[in-house]
Formats: sequence, C-alpha cells, structure tokens
Amino acid sequence: MKREIFIGRVGVGGRHPVSLQSMTTTPTADSRATLTQIRALARAGCDIVRVAVPDTASLVGLRAIVRRSPLPVVADIHFDAELALRSLDCGVHGLRINPGNIGGAKNVARILRLANERGVPIRIGVNAGSLEKKYRRTDLSRPEAMVRSALDKVKFCEDHGFLAIKISLKSSHVRHTVEAYRLLDRRCDYPLHVGITEAGTFLQGTVKSAIGIGALLLEGIGNTIRVSLTADPLEEVRVGREILKALQLRSNGIELISCPACARTSVDIIARVQEFEARAARLPIRRTLRVAVMGCEVNGPGEAADADIGIAFSRNHGFIFERGRIRERVPAREGVRRLLQRLKDMA
Amino acid sequence: MKREIFIGRVGVGGRHPVSLQSMTTTPTADSRATLTQIRALARAGCDIVRVAVPDTASLVGLRAIVRRSPLPVVADIHFDAELALRSLDCGVHGLRINPGNIGGAKNVARILRLANERGVPIRIGVNAGSLEKKYRRTDLSRPEAMVRSALDKVKFCEDHGFLAIKISLKSSHVRHTVEAYRLLDRRCDYPLHVGITEAGTFLQGTVKSAIGIGALLLEGIGNTIRVSLTADPLEEVRVGREILKALQLRSNGIELISCPACARTSVDIIARVQEFEARAARLPIRRTLRVAVMGCEVNGPGEAADADIGIAFSRNHGFIFERGRIRERVPAREGVRRLLQRLKDMA
Repeated sequence: MKREIFIGRVGVGGRHPVSLQSMTTTPTADSRATLTQIRALARAGCDIVRVAVPDTASLVGLRAIVRRSPLPVVADIHFDAELALRSLDCGVHGLRINPGNIGGAKNVARILRLANERGVPIRIGVNAGSLEKKYRRTDLSRPEAMVRSALDKVKFCEDHGFLAIKISLKSSHVRHTVEAYRLLDRRCDYPLHVGITEAGTFLQGTVKSAIGIGALLLEGIGNTIRVSLTADPLEEVRVGREILKALQLRSNGIELISCPACARTSVDIIARVQEFEARAARLPIRRTLRVAVMGCEVNGPGEAADADIGIAFSRNHGFIFERGRIRERVPAREGVRRLLQRLKDMA
Repeated sequence: MKREIFIGRVGVGGRHPVSLQSMTTTPTADSRATLTQIRALARAGCDIVRVAVPDTASLVGLRAIVRRSPLPVVADIHFDAELALRSLDCGVHGLRINPGNIGGAKNVARILRLANERGVPIRIGVNAGSLEKKYRRTDLSRPEAMVRSALDKVKFCEDHGFLAIKISLKSSHVRHTVEAYRLLDRRCDYPLHVGITEAGTFLQGTVKSAIGIGALLLEGIGNTIRVSLTADPLEEVRVGREILKALQLRSNGIELISCPACARTSVDIIARVQEFEARAARLPIRRTLRVAVMGCEVNGPGEAADADIGIAFSRNHGFIFERGRIRERVPAREGVRRLLQRLKDMA
C-alpha cells in the first residue's frame, strides 16, 4: 500500500479510491472564467483540478480561484521558484513542479520548506520529453531513465525531510509509460499520479489513455489519474470516469451493456439504446445498476442474466429480465419505456 | 507462439501481425447493401469481416457477398447446423459457432468434417452470458469457467481431428475478460480472438475495449481483435486501428503527439491541431512519422525532440524541430502550413 497524502480534503494513496484530475484551459488570471470551468469539471465528476501559473499576473486570479473553488486546486509551475512560493501563499492545496527546471537545488529546497510549513503536498512530475542530460544515455531504456530521474528527486525531497510526495512519469509512448510506472511502483511507496502525456485529440487520446491508465489500474498501480486530451477538459473527465467505471473503481448510475448491431437484430438497436441512455440520464439513481439492452435472442438472455435488469428484443416483443428471470413480455415499441419504468421502481 | 490459421488470405497467429475484424449490420440477405458496407470497412482498415447468417434467406446474399467481398468473410451462426453447412457451401473463409448451441455433438461433428474438407477455420466463441449449466457453479470463478468451457470444445474439435481453431472468451466485464484470456493463453497454443462483448455505446465501448484489448496486447496476448460497439461498424474499425497504433502493432501515416490545452498555451492549440489533422489527412505518407504539435515552451521542445518532426508554439512564433533540432522559426500563424510543407518533403 502506498503512503497517504491529502490534496485539500481529497486523500490520495492509502486506502483512498482512485481520484480523477483535470486541468483548466482558461487564463488563470481570469478567475471568473476559470471558476466557471472548475464548477463544470466538479459537476462532471472531477476530484482535483490543476491550474497553470505561468506568470505573476496569474497569482491574483489564483488567490480568488483557491478561495472559491469547489475542488482542491493544484498549481502547476515551471522555471520560476518565486511563482511556486507565491502560489503557496495563495493557499493552493498542492503544487506540481519539475525539480529539474525550477532554478536549482537551493530553490527547490526553499519550496520544500514552505510547502512543509503549509502542509501542502508536491507532485514530482518527470516527463520523458524533458529528462536531464545524464539520463539521456543510450544504454538506459527510456522507462528506466525516467524512474532514475524521479528517484533522484525523491531522494532530494527526503534529504530535506519532505515526504508529502506523489510522483508522475509521463510519456506519449503507451508502452514506455506502463513500463516506467511498473518499475517505479516496485521501488517506492509514494502514491502515483498516472497518465499518458500529449496523448492527442479525442479519439487517439482516449484510446491511448484507456490502454495505459487501464492496464496499470488493472495491476493495482495508480492512486490518482488524469486523462490528457487536446480537447475540452470536460471530455477528459468524461473519459476518466469511464475508465474508472469500466474497472469498477468508481461508479454511480448505470453501467449499460448493449450489443453491437448485426444482421440478427430485428429492431433498430442503436436507436433504442440511444433512446434509453437519453431518458435514463434523467433518472435519480443512487447505486450502480448493470442494465442490458440487447437486440436479439442470441446473447440477450444470457447477458441480461448477468445484469440487474435488462431487455432482449425479438422481432415483435421485448422480454424484460431481472437478475436472469423473465419478468414480462412487452410489445417491442414499448420496450424502452417499460424498462425505464421498472428501473425507476428499483432505484 | 500460437499456431497459424488462415482466414482467406489473412494469416492469424504465428508471426502474423494482429488483424482487425468487424461485423456488418446490414441484412445479409441484402448483398448489395452488405457489400457496400464491407467495402467501406476495408477502406477504413478492416482485415476480416463477419456477417450474421440467422436464416436461410441470408444464404443467397451470403454467396454473392463471399464472391465479391474485398475482405475474407466469416459467417456467424447460432442454433442451426444446416445454416453452418450451407454457409460452407457458399465458400465462406471462416465460421464462428458456439458448439454449445448448434444442435448437439453430432451436428458439431458434421460441421467440423465439412470445414476440414474445405480448409475453413472455425472460431470457438465462448460468451460469459451463455455458459453451459455445469460451468455456472459458484465455486468456479467466471474466468475459470469460461476457460474450461472453451477447452472442452477445443478437446471435442481435437478428438475429431480438427485443429484450424481460434478461440474467443467474451464478457462485458473488462476484468473477467482479461483474466480469462490470460488463463487460456497459458493453457493452449491456438490463436486468440480478443474483444470485450456488449461494450456499449461509443465512448463507454471505446474505453472498455481499449483497456481490455490493450492490456492483453501489451502482454502479447491476442492474434486478432474486434472492438464491439453499439454504433456504426466503421467506428469499430477506427477505434481498433487506434488501439493497434497506440501499441505500435500496426500503423501507417502519422502518430500525432499534441499537448492538452492549458493556461500556458499562447495560441489556440486545439484549433491548430485540428487544422493540422485535417490537412495532414490528405498527405500521401507511406511510413509512420511521429509528429508533435505543442502549445508552449514547457513540454514542447522535449516532446518535439522525441518526434520525427514537430512544432512548438510560443506567443508569436512557431519553432519547427526535426529530430530534436530547431530547423526554423516561423510566424505563429504560418506554423501549421510550414510544418505540413516540411512533412511533405520528408514523406
């Protein structure tokens, strides 16, 4: 088990559930726009938000953001140690720095001292794209180089009595990322922040993130995650929640099991499933229910048996199942409505 | 290494690259519509296509489809052994049956005999939703039950001298699927067809498939894959190719590395990346190139160094890199155009 840190009220590591992060895209100096975005991220299921602090103009905004944000705020700082120190003065709940680019050991030590006083954890972010020269040796695999670079920085923190650390090792290579985290996981007990960096636009980024983050979470590696997309951060949160839901790590609402349309389906199953999704989104469901919407009798009853509730359509009818037993036969065109009705009774 | 089979001209197992499958959604009886869909799937990068054969009316269509399809055709048959035998007469390149629901051992033996004569391989598809009663015991884990059910059927085929097998073990549970394939991979050397079944609508299905298929491919498990979505099968192929590309298993064209937008980016990076993607899609690129489009100077140069070519924007300029060296500084608004120009020269 990993050590435990707290980003504001959100525990990371220990026995805490895997948390979900995203990063704002609005100018941090514009606290109003940034807070609007943070509130939307919170509603979508984000747990921790990161904001970039690239200049002193951002600090005024940062103070207002921290004061009013519904989510704990992590300041992301590069190059300028003063910005990190002043962000701590703004009351941020976490810092993300790369100790290799913040102005040398003395400055890192100053930041650690102040963060320690304020009880603010720091993420050590190592990025394959910005490794120190000594780790760009060709005799080291890229994952091994990333891990050594991270452990150097961990050692520096420990030497300064600073232990409220989490670590990230990001690369745009899925395989490198997975290998690097596996190596690191065995060699330290600090919580890990997992993600694929520069993953790309919506589809490519979703696929790369789901593979990399998903493969690690399947092995129990990863305490907090971020899906990084060149897209609206709300999309990052949607994808992140789907990853956690697929692995039963966090969930609320409905897990939908629906079959691919094929020549066997006698109803327009894509339209039925979309109708179901749209109408189910408005149901007040507090626990997780597995709901199956199936287009034919081949997989339908079996998969429906695995679900809490489900419907399998045949040509003219829909058969509504609850935990594997047929409850009623309804006309196909009324299937979705009747399924929703029963679901409402269950929830 | 797994044994090798051939679905038409496509090798599966052995040293063959991981192939990509999808399934038509048009009525198989309508050969014209089905062939139109198959041609679109082939253009999108599908390697093998499956069509459902639910009734005798489909057989006439099937014959025309097999004759004119640009892709090898697998007939998917349930319940009716006659349909399987007659599909073989139509010249299909593969069969997918569930030996547990095709009318008993005698019928399976008849199908195996004819498939053997025709040199047509068979996929044994075990689905968590339709396990035989004897494997629904509560003392067996679901993955173990799926594997035992599959190995029973493999044994039956072997006893009848039929070895041109591939196996699938599908469940809508990502964890069960991954565990089941891991167990099976150790216990037999037949090629494996990997997928998550009933994965759901586009986003949920993409995430579940990417995690499950991706985690297995990362371990070297899986010889042919299918992404199953309740969506247009062209989407299944797009997602499947992204999975293979993310793991460098199949690729052509451009692997795009792009940063998430954040408050540090001084240009509208989402718009730039989209502009780049749209225009790059028309470039005739034969080998794989890693291209970075980055919004700021923090990760930009480093990630660009990892790419074959890239651009990192600052406020007013774009810096074009080739294998880590700055090649030129261009005005920001001309950045994408100049990057494309250089890319064209490289390709």
